[in-house]
Amino acid sequence: MLKPIIISDPFPRSLDLIFEKKKFLELKKNYKIISPPNKNKKDKKNFYEKNIAKATFIVGQPDLPRKLLIKALKLKAIFNVESNFMDNMDYEYCIKNGIHVLSTSPVFAQPVAELALGLTLSLARDIHNAHNDFIASKEKYGGKASKKNFLLKDKTFGMIGFGDLAKSLLPLLKPFSKKIYSYDPWVPHQYMLDNDVQPSSLNLLLKTCDVIYVLASITSKNQGLINKSKLDMIKKNACFILMSRAAIINFPDFYKKLKSSEIYAAIDVFPVEPVKKNDPIRKLKNVIFSAHRAGALDIVFKEMGNIVYEDMLLIQKNLPPRLCKRAEKETVGLLRSKPVDHN
Amino acid sequence: MLKPIIISDPFPRSLDLIFEKKKFLELKKNYKIISPPNKNKKDKKNFYEKNIAKATFIVGQPDLPRKLLIKALKLKAIFNVESNFMDNMDYEYCIKNGIHVLSTSPVFAQPVAELALGLTLSLARDIHNAHNDFIASKEKYGGKASKKNFLLKDKTFGMIGFGDLAKSLLPLLKPFSKKIYSYDPWVPHQYMLDNDVQPSSLNLLLKTCDVIYVLASITSKNQGLINKSKLDMIKKNACFILMSRAAIINFPDFYKKLKSSEIYAAIDVFPVEPVKKNDPIRKLKNVIFSAHRAGALDIVFKEMGNIVYEDMLLIQKNLPPRLCKRAEKETVGLLRSKPVDHN
Amino acid sequence: MLKPIIISDPFPRSLDLIFEKKKFLELKKNYKIISPPNKNKKDKKNFYEKNIAKATFIVGQPDLPRKLLIKALKLKAIFNVESNFMDNMDYEYCIKNGIHVLSTSPVFAQPVAELALGLTLSLARDIHNAHNDFIASKEKYGGKASKKNFLLKDKTFGMIGFGDLAKSLLPLLKPFSKKIYSYDPWVPHQYMLDNDVQPSSLNLLLKTCDVIYVLASITSKNQGLINKSKLDMIKKNACFILMSRAAIINFPDFYKKLKSSEIYAAIDVFPVEPVKKNDPIRKLKNVIFSAHRAGALDIVFKEMGNIVYEDMLLIQKNLPPRLCKRAEKETVGLLRSKPVDHN
Amino acid sequence: MLKPIIISDPFPRSLDLIFEKKKFLELKKNYKIISPPNKNKKDKKNFYEKNIAKATFIVGQPDLPRKLLIKALKLKAIFNVESNFMDNMDYEYCIKNGIHVLSTSPVFAQPVAELALGLTLSLARDIHNAHNDFIASKEKYGGKASKKNFLLKDKTFGMIGFGDLAKSLLPLLKPFSKKIYSYDPWVPHQYMLDNDVQPSSLNLLLKTCDVIYVLASITSKNQGLINKSKLDMIKKNACFILMSRAAIINFPDFYKKLKSSEIYAAIDVFPVEPVKKNDPIRKLKNVIFSAHRAGALDIVFKEMGNIVYEDMLLIQKNLPPRLCKRAEKETVGLLRSKPVDHN
Repeated sequence: MLKPIIISDPFPRSLDLIFEKKKFLELKKNYKIISPPNKNKKDKKNFYEKNIAKATFIVGQPDLPRKLLIKALKLKAIFNVESNFMDNMDYEYCIKNGIHVLSTSPVFAQPVAELALGLTLSLARDIHNAHNDFIASKEKYGGKASKKNFLLKDKTFGMIGFGDLAKSLLPLLKPFSKKIYSYDPWVPHQYMLDNDVQPSSLNLLLKTCDVIYVLASITSKNQGLINKSKLDMIKKNACFILMSRAAIINFPDFYKKLKSSEIYAAIDVFPVEPVKKNDPIRKLKNVIFSAHRAGALDIVFKEMGNIVYEDMLLIQKNLPPRLCKRAEKETVGLLRSKPVDHN
Repeated sequence: MLKPIIISDPFPRSLDLIFEKKKFLELKKNYKIISPPNKNKKDKKNFYEKNIAKATFIVGQPDLPRKLLIKALKLKAIFNVESNFMDNMDYEYCIKNGIHVLSTSPVFAQPVAELALGLTLSLARDIHNAHNDFIASKEKYGGKASKKNFLLKDKTFGMIGFGDLAKSLLPLLKPFSKKIYSYDPWVPHQYMLDNDVQPSSLNLLLKTCDVIYVLASITSKNQGLINKSKLDMIKKNACFILMSRAAIINFPDFYKKLKSSEIYAAIDVFPVEPVKKNDPIRKLKNVIFSAHRAGALDIVFKEMGNIVYEDMLLIQKNLPPRLCKRAEKETVGLLRSKPVDHN
Repeated sequence: MLKPIIISDPFPRSLDLIFEKKKFLELKKNYKIISPPNKNKKDKKNFYEKNIAKATFIVGQPDLPRKLLIKALKLKAIFNVESNFMDNMDYEYCIKNGIHVLSTSPVFAQPVAELALGLTLSLARDIHNAHNDFIASKEKYGGKASKKNFLLKDKTFGMIGFGDLAKSLLPLLKPFSKKIYSYDPWVPHQYMLDNDVQPSSLNLLLKTCDVIYVLASITSKNQGLINKSKLDMIKKNACFILMSRAAIINFPDFYKKLKSSEIYAAIDVFPVEPVKKNDPIRKLKNVIFSAHRAGALDIVFKEMGNIVYEDMLLIQKNLPPRLCKRAEKETVGLLRSKPVDHN
Repeated sequence: MLKPIIISDPFPRSLDLIFEKKKFLELKKNYKIISPPNKNKKDKKNFYEKNIAKATFIVGQPDLPRKLLIKALKLKAIFNVESNFMDNMDYEYCIKNGIHVLSTSPVFAQPVAELALGLTLSLARDIHNAHNDFIASKEKYGGKASKKNFLLKDKTFGMIGFGDLAKSLLPLLKPFSKKIYSYDPWVPHQYMLDNDVQPSSLNLLLKTCDVIYVLASITSKNQGLINKSKLDMIKKNACFILMSRAAIINFPDFYKKLKSSEIYAAIDVFPVEPVKKNDPIRKLKNVIFSAHRAGALDIVFKEMGNIVYEDMLLIQKNLPPRLCKRAEKETVGLLRSKPVDHN
C-alpha cells in the first residue's frame, strides 16, 4: 500500500528542528515526505501545482490560493508551524472543504508562562540587579536592598487575553493568589468563571491589578489598544509584563509612562526587532528586558513535532485533531501577526 | 484592672520594625510595654532581675538563665523575633514550666519560597544574563541565546529539609511537576506522603533531581553535610539552590564543584557575610547570587508583629499559640544558628 | 432595525424549561422567536419551508434535510438541546457551509460528575444500606457494620471516556488520589498527560483500577464493548460506576457478573427504560441504583439556556462559540444516542 | 542490649486491632511488650505500680494518677488510642515532665471527611431514596424525581471547628466551591486565611452557608452550643451535617427544627447510643442517618498502629513526634469526650 504523502515546507523552521530524531524516523517510516525546491518562487509554484493533488498533509505555511487548493482533493490538514496565520492562503476554502488548518502555537504556552512568572519574580525581588551588585562586589545584605521588594502572595493579577498563554500561566499564579482577573472580548464570562478567573473590563483590570500580563494575540481590533489613557489607569508600583505582541501597546506612550518611573515592566516583545542599539528604552531602570525569548527553546520546537504527529494520527483515523489549534472561520481573518524572522 | 506587661527587647529588631502602626497602637492599648536600658550589660541584668516577675510576655531573645526564670512566675511566653534559638536561655526550664518559647520564623517561609522559585526560573531561562545583554545592546533574539534553556515543567525537584520553607515552596512547585522528593531525617515518611511528596534518602535525592533546594535548618548534625562526595552525586546540568543555611554545605568543595561548571547554582547564603570583595566565587558564570535577601522584606517584618499579636491573644485566652513556631525540648538544643547581624 | 429570528423547536424540552425568566425576557427583547406548530408533521414541514430562510438560529433538533438547509442562507447556528446528535439533519452540509451545529451537553458534566462521586462514596461506605438499617431500627454502631468499607484515599481510579464528563469528574477525584487512568481512543495520550491523567489501554484500566467509571458517549464502535471477557478482568471488590450510556455494556453479561457478587456497581443508565418491574437486576445487593437521574436537575436545564444565550452573543459578534459543544465532521456520524424520552 | 518496654493496655482496642501483622511483628522484634491483667482493678493497679518504672511507652489510656507517674522515670510517651483525653491521668504532670501524651485521633480525619462528603452528596441528589424507590420498583426517571435536587458546585460551605477533621474535609470541598467559611474560637483568623478559608462568627456562618458541617471537639465550653436560636438562623433548604459530637447540639431543639422540615440533615452521632428503637427521630424524612460509622473502618484502626509506630521511632531518636496529636496543657482539661463503647 502506498504511504500517504506529506509536503514538508516549514520555512523558516525545518523538520529537523521540530522533530526529535526518533519521531522523525517514525514519520519517515509511515509517510512519504516531499519538499518544494528552495530556489525560486516559480519552481516552488510549479512544485505545488504538480504535487498538491497527492498530498494528505502539508507542514508549513506556503502560499495556497484557491486555484491551488481546488486541486488538493486528498488534503486533510495544513500544519502551520509558524504559529501565525498569515494572509497567504484561502482559509475560507479550507474550512468549507473540511481541510483542517492547524497551528502549533499551543507549544509556546508553557514556556511563555514560565518566563512570565520568572520575569515577575525578578521584578518583585530585584533578582537581576541584586545579582549584578554581587558580581560588582557592591551588594547590600538582607533588608537593606529589599525595602521596596514585594511578595506575589495575595497580589491581584490581571491577564489581558484569555487564550492558551493565559491558561498556562493560570495554574502557576493560583498558588500565589485567588485574585485573578481577565479581559478578553472573545471569551464568554462563564468560561472564565469556570476557570476561577474573574471576568473584567479592560479599564477595571488596569485600575485594579498589581501585576498585569499582556497575553493576547494581535488582531485588527486591538492594535495600539493600550495607549496613554489606558496606561495612566495603572496603579503606582504595579508590574506590567508584556509577553505576547508589542503591537497591542502604543509603544511611544509606553516608553513615556515607563520613563516617568511609576510602574515596573518586563518586556519580551518589541515593535521592531532587533531594537536599535541606541534606543533610549535600553536605559530604563524599572524595566527587565528579554529579547523575544519567551517561546524559543529547543525542547519547545521538538514539542511542535510531537503535536503535529499526534494530530496526524488522529486525522488518519478519521478523528478530529486535539493538540494543535484550529483556524476558526470567524477569527482567522482578524489575526495580524507578522511572520517570524528568527526561531 | 492592670494591663499585662510585655518586656520588649527585640534587638537587633525593634517593635517599630515588626509592628504596623495600627497594630502597635492596639498593642500599647492592651499591654504595658517596658524595655531594658540599652546602655550596658549590668543595667540590663538589673532591669530583668527587677522586672521579670511582673512580665506576662517577653518579645526578644535576652539572656535568661534559670536563676532569672525562676522568678518569672507570670511569664507565659517568650517571642523570639530573631528566628534563631541561641544558647542564651534555659529552654528546658521554660518548657517544663509551661512557658512557651516561640519563634517568628514562619513569616520567612513565603518570601524564601518565592525567591527560591524566582532564582530557579532565572537559571532555567537565563533571565539575568539576557537582561544584561540587552542593556549592553548585545542581545540575541529568540532561540539563538536560549539553546540550553529548559522548562521547569515535569522536572524532578528535591527539597533537603521538609519544614516551613519546604511547605511554602511546595505549592509553588506543584503546578510544574508531580515529581517532588524530600529528605528530612526529622520527618516521618507518612507525613511527606500526606503532602504528595516522595520521601527519599539524601543520596537518591541528589542523584535523581533536576532542581535541588537546600531548605534545612542548620543543626549540630548536618554541618558540612553536603561535601564533595555528595556534590559529585548531582546530575550534570542540575540546579542547586541554596536558600537556608550555608553551613550545611562544605563551601570549599562547593566552590570547586561550581568551578568545574557542570551544574548551575543559586546562592542566597554564604559562610561569611559580607563575602570578601575579591572572593573568586564572584567570578562564577553558572551561579546567580543573592546577598542573604530571601526573607528580609519590610512587609515580612510587619508579619512578625501580626503573628506575635495573634498568639498573645490566644495565650491570654488560655489557648495554645498557633502561628509562631514552638521550641521543642528535643530539638532546641540541636539548632545552631548564629545571631542575625542585619535585618 | 429588524431583530434576528430564532426558530424555537426544542422538543422534548421547551424554552421555558431551559431559560431562567430573566434571561428569557432578555432573549425575547433581542430576538424575534417563532415556533413551528405542534400539530402534525406536514404543518411542521411547511413551517420550516416557509421560515428557514429568515432564521439566524434554530434552537432544537428538527428534521433538517439538505433541501431545506439549502434555503437557510442566514442560518448561523443550530443549538441542539437534546444533547444527542440524531440522524435527522445534514450535518455535513451545515459544517461545510459554516453553520455551527452545537450541543448543550456540557451542562450535564458537573451534575453527572457529582452524582458519580456520590454513588461511589455510597458504595464505599454503604451509606444507603446503613440509612435503611437505621430507619428499620436495626442499625449497627461503629465498626460492626463497616468491616468491608473502604476509603477512596489513594485508590486507583479509571475513566472509560475522556470527554466533558471525565473532565468534570477529574477535579473531584484528584484530592483523593493521584492514580487516575483513562482510556479513550479519540484522545491523544499527550492530552491526558497534560491533565495529570495516565493514558491506558482498556484492558490495563479494567485490571488495575479500584473504581471504574463509564463516561464515554455511545458510538457505532463501542456498542457492547464491555462484555464478559472485559468484565472478568475487573479486580475483586472493585466498584464499577455506569454513568453515561448503557449500550456500551453487554447488559446480560453485566448482570451475570454482578450476580456472582465479586464487584460492586452503581448504575444510572439501563438498556431499556423504564426497567421492567420484575427485572431480576432489582434484587442485586451489591448495586446502588439511580433511574437515569444524573443530569436532570432544574438548575441544569436553566444552565442550558445560559450557554445557548452566551454563544448566540459571540456568534452575533462574528466570533466562534465557546460554551456549547460543536458537532465535528469526523465524529458526528458515529454518535448513536437515542432521543431522550424524559427530561 | 535490653529492648525498651511498652506497656500495652489499649482497651477497648487491642494491639491486634490497631497493628497490621507485619508491623506488629516489627514492633515485637524491637520492643518488649507487657500487658496488665484484665481481671480486676486491684491486679491492674498492682501491675502498674510494679512496672511503670521500666516502661518507655504506654499504649492505652489507663488510670495514671500523679503518685504512679512519679515512678515513671523512663516513660517518654503515652499513646492514647481511644482518641479521647479522659479525666483519668495527670496530664499536667506529664507535660511538665516531658512525657508526651499523644492521641491517635488524626487517623479518623480522612474517613470522617469522606463520609461527610458522601452524606452531603446523598442529600443533594437524594441518592438513598432514589435507590430505595428503584428497589421497590417505583422509581421515577430523569428529572421527575430530581426537581429539588441541587449541585454542590459554587455552594457556600461552613465548617464549625477547624481542626483535623476540617483540614481533611477542606481539600474534598475545594473543587466544588471557593466559598468556604469556618468558625473556631481556638484558631486565629490568619491560620484559616492561610488555608483559603474565610474566618467567620458562628452566627454569620449559620446564616450564610448552604451546607454546614459540625466538626468540632466537644469541650466544657461548647456543650449545647447549637440550640434553637442558633438553629433558627439556618437558611431554608440548607444541609446540616453532624459528624463530630452530638453534645454540641441541643438535640431536642434539633429534633423540633428538623420536624419543621425546613432544612436537611445528616446525622452520624447521637446523644445516647444506641438510639432507642422507638425514637421519633427515626421517622424524619429530611434526614439521612448513619450510626456512628464515620471513623470506624478496619483500615483506619491499622493506620493507628502505623502512626504510633512512626512516632515511637522519632521519640527513640530523641526527636519530637509528628503524626499523633499532642495533648496541650491549655486545652486537655477542656475536652469532655466520653469513652468509646464500640470500635
